[in-house]
Amino acid sequence: MPAYKASIRDIQFVLHEMLEIEQHYARLPGGEGLGRETIDAMISEVARFMERVVAPLNRSGDEEGCHWSPEGVRTPAGFKEAYDQYYESGFGSIATDEAYGGQGLPPSLRTVLSEMVGAANSSFSMYPGLTAGAIAAIQDHGSEEQKQAYLPKMNEGVWSGTMCLTESHCGTDLGLLRTKAEPLGDGSYAITGEKIFISAGEHDLTENIIHLVLARLPDAPAGTKGISLFIVPKLAIDEQGNVGDNNGVQCASLEHKMGIKASATCVMAFENARGVLLGEPNKGLRAMFTMMNHARLATGMQGMALGVLSFQGALEYAKERLQMRSLTGPKAPDKPADPIIVHPDVRRMLLTQKVIAEGSRAMAGYCSMISDLALRLPETEEGKHAEAQLELLTPICKAFMTDLGSEACNLGVQVFGGHGYIREQGMEQMIRDGRVLQIYEGANGIQALDLLGRKVLADGGARLKGFIGRIEALCEEHRGDEELKEFIEPLERLHPEWVGLVSEIMERALQNPDEAGAASYDFLSYSGYVSFAYFFAWSAAVAKRKLREGSDEAAFYEAKLLTARFYVRRILPRTRALVETMRSSASDLMDLDAEHFSF
Amino acid sequence: MPAYKASIRDIQFVLHEMLEIEQHYARLPGGEGLGRETIDAMISEVARFMERVVAPLNRSGDEEGCHWSPEGVRTPAGFKEAYDQYYESGFGSIATDEAYGGQGLPPSLRTVLSEMVGAANSSFSMYPGLTAGAIAAIQDHGSEEQKQAYLPKMNEGVWSGTMCLTESHCGTDLGLLRTKAEPLGDGSYAITGEKIFISAGEHDLTENIIHLVLARLPDAPAGTKGISLFIVPKLAIDEQGNVGDNNGVQCASLEHKMGIKASATCVMAFENARGVLLGEPNKGLRAMFTMMNHARLATGMQGMALGVLSFQGALEYAKERLQMRSLTGPKAPDKPADPIIVHPDVRRMLLTQKVIAEGSRAMAGYCSMISDLALRLPETEEGKHAEAQLELLTPICKAFMTDLGSEACNLGVQVFGGHGYIREQGMEQMIRDGRVLQIYEGANGIQALDLLGRKVLADGGARLKGFIGRIEALCEEHRGDEELKEFIEPLERLHPEWVGLVSEIMERALQNPDEAGAASYDFLSYSGYVSFAYFFAWSAAVAKRKLREGSDEAAFYEAKLLTARFYVRRILPRTRALVETMRSSASDLMDLDAEHFSF
Repeated sequence: MPAYKASIRDIQFVLHEMLEIEQHYARLPGGEGLGRETIDAMISEVARFMERVVAPLNRSGDEEGCHWSPEGVRTPAGFKEAYDQYYESGFGSIATDEAYGGQGLPPSLRTVLSEMVGAANSSFSMYPGLTAGAIAAIQDHGSEEQKQAYLPKMNEGVWSGTMCLTESHCGTDLGLLRTKAEPLGDGSYAITGEKIFISAGEHDLTENIIHLVLARLPDAPAGTKGISLFIVPKLAIDEQGNVGDNNGVQCASLEHKMGIKASATCVMAFENARGVLLGEPNKGLRAMFTMMNHARLATGMQGMALGVLSFQGALEYAKERLQMRSLTGPKAPDKPADPIIVHPDVRRMLLTQKVIAEGSRAMAGYCSMISDLALRLPETEEGKHAEAQLELLTPICKAFMTDLGSEACNLGVQVFGGHGYIREQGMEQMIRDGRVLQIYEGANGIQALDLLGRKVLADGGARLKGFIGRIEALCEEHRGDEELKEFIEPLERLHPEWVGLVSEIMERALQNPDEAGAASYDFLSYSGYVSFAYFFAWSAAVAKRKLREGSDEAAFYEAKLLTARFYVRRILPRTRALVETMRSSASDLMDLDAEHFSF
Repeated sequence: MPAYKASIRDIQFVLHEMLEIEQHYARLPGGEGLGRETIDAMISEVARFMERVVAPLNRSGDEEGCHWSPEGVRTPAGFKEAYDQYYESGFGSIATDEAYGGQGLPPSLRTVLSEMVGAANSSFSMYPGLTAGAIAAIQDHGSEEQKQAYLPKMNEGVWSGTMCLTESHCGTDLGLLRTKAEPLGDGSYAITGEKIFISAGEHDLTENIIHLVLARLPDAPAGTKGISLFIVPKLAIDEQGNVGDNNGVQCASLEHKMGIKASATCVMAFENARGVLLGEPNKGLRAMFTMMNHARLATGMQGMALGVLSFQGALEYAKERLQMRSLTGPKAPDKPADPIIVHPDVRRMLLTQKVIAEGSRAMAGYCSMISDLALRLPETEEGKHAEAQLELLTPICKAFMTDLGSEACNLGVQVFGGHGYIREQGMEQMIRDGRVLQIYEGANGIQALDLLGRKVLADGGARLKGFIGRIEALCEEHRGDEELKEFIEPLERLHPEWVGLVSEIMERALQNPDEAGAASYDFLSYSGYVSFAYFFAWSAAVAKRKLREGSDEAAFYEAKLLTARFYVRRILPRTRALVETMRSSASDLMDLDAEHFSF
């Protein structure tokens, strides 16, 4: 396993130099007084913990996996200690409500942590990740009594959380779910049903596990309009908050998965488990979406994190591994061969990983900044605008960053050659761990439909135009700057094309809704590449300014410019293929009879 | 695991309807009298065996894996029995020399078998695959005595073969290898050194294992010009052909891999192991390339085979899994939801898998046909032309078909959603098993350099123009056919573009050799997509002719046309991105200092 080393300089570049986060925090409730020094100290503290405590459990956790017995699930060696330290260090409650034991800091600080914990140990990151989602749902939808009952212990890490949605016959289509909730007459409900793919459903890390479970009330309407959300603790909790006997919640088995083997993915059986309603009856999906949106952004970051780790591993290997001579003559004549980083095709792979890591980091940073605004200033014009932006960018973040994350992990293995296929090297684990990201929290095809259907076509492109407004502003600012032309000009061509594609698809979709479905995936990918072009142009503009001002970190900023150039010249052209396929007819996909796919 | 079902109808389409293989066999030494009935009977026999005997061991083999002990390596349950039956059925000696126990049938028949065994069980296919490569090397480079000594038992499956190239510090760069061969004075040599990643290096399937080992003679020149190839049996063989004691060949350990877990990948230690020279001293790489070229085509087919299996699994699932309603209204109103094959984005994934499977099958079939000519009519004009074609197409086959194979396997998992991530379903295993194909037998980046450097630029594009001659002939034949226009027109645009790109790259590479390295991967992918466009146009022309003739399999041929159309409209546009990136400068890749990739 490559020894994870947090990308502190680049994280600082995004936070301080691109986002000017200090100024942003200055006017954000919970961010007052957060100066650069404090922020950087926090980054260093998190980095140290992830590098020293969490990362060393990544490889061993994959080999050991989780073990089920009738008494419960055992997580791999070291997980419990690391988990306890994680919460003792306060990493589990950075941005949660101070009234219930949280620290109330800006949510964007959690993003920085997300990258680091995800890169250090993908499986480990699931446990606090799920709890964070459950905390958010209870914060947003719980009664005062519920918040008092659950949040302090969850913020402390004494109890953890889950989200129990999927059943074996329904994942995407939650309208089909069958788990039942029968009123017990005292305001609580008896929950019965089986859920699958439940991350952190059972484990030995906490005293109790607070399951958030989707189920149907007896008189519920069919479909998604009849789903309610319930808080169902694993162990019963008395009025003093003490845990007692099992509450009818059993882990029936562990799923055997391709990766994230140290994350306990459980089949959960609820049998007359006592639960309470979270939020309103039959509006469970809405409440669950608080968790889902949180989880979707977090999933995008996991993709980024794995891309970062894979890039680090591949880069180190490419600088050390000696194989063949450069086509332009020996570069290490004193050695038996040149380090493989001299070969253009190896550089193509490394630079692709690099732009995936850095483009994703910038995008994630931007999303976390607008997420701060949406969450902390929801009533303001700015907060509402940010919310709309976030709605647009969430599916892109989730799907595009996980698709690219998988690409980066695959490239990392390729750079290692045969050694990449060997488990001890840790490179192939990233492919396995990362592969689920394109699937869970709404498969990427669902994100594509969400983006094109709900986020773009549904409002006639208004949210999209909002984001494009930012792109135009950047273009406006740097128009005529000869040295930035290579980054700005493509954007000036792309943003009107983007809007134009929406009009074209909208027109076709009005005739035939399948046209939207047929164009959706390409549209999402296209949107991702154009968004990245914006973030790279932005980073190039910052770097150029620093160089003009005479920075003593010239190599760093020059590298930023070359990285942006690689993106524009070698990755952005992928949009040319996507534009063409997006413009093709849905009939390409729909004409073949289902029975004639194979003979 | 999806139950593998050989794609007999489509295999027949390629063999009989596209390649007109019966006519081809009629004038091929070893193919005389092979009529359609015999060919189809063989296909059915192979299919039955792979479906019933080999495929059922695929999932269990992955879970059980191979086990090392000082006594040797144990393959998973059932492998030994299946292996014996494989050879008893004569599948191991279809195309090998009759003088040494082979059947002497055309090599192209082995291709049909390759697809089926690879789809049935990727790990299993490695054992006879390695033996076939070793047989080919001994057939081509061995003395009469060596052929007599080894080939009959290898053809029978009583002994197996390996290729021992890689050492821990060298894979691509074999010039660095250190294994030594000391002359023993009796014409034999004492081989000492450690080899890694040796497929089938040790196992319990055969009485003996014949290792072909690259090593250096004492006075050998440095680099690749000082490498010789040796035959080194695991157990010593006396003059009567009886096996005796261990010959100084030990399996030191098994590699722990991402996939192909039922294939024993060994670290092999040779300590004064007695071996004999195969071919001439210091010309071992040339002899090894007989195996390598064989293995590269076979690797491409493994990629195709996994694509086929993944497509089958995903298609079956997509027809059964009920989730959401079609955007154009319910298609299965009697069911709680529609089968997911109604959704355009699911169809995009399935059709992509389908064109990967069928395009690869056509390309593999074509390569195997010209391989027949190159091997069996080497002295004729036609044979030489075929050899040149094969040299051009081998790296494309190897790299492009394994890249696409991985894409297909990833799509298969995606179609399954969360269930695809679960091992029992067998879909994720294909990603793991297939991931090595892009690496072994020359990583795909090496194939790209081989294609652009040795196969295209080195002869000024002559081999390429040979292949383009066939494309032109197809265009010529169908020019003006309105119903084939959609397939022919793109080809008419692409083939001159292909030649033009070669000229452009050549010009730049003359100034700076890194330009070739920088363009190579995109050039290989581009070449693959254009080649596939040719095979799909060819298949469409055949299908259209059959329909015009009034076939009673109209649905099959209509599906062929729709498949080709999907390819042209939804996959071929990828060339637009590749053309753009290929035209960019090598400086995009080379300007960043190796020390400035990360800060």
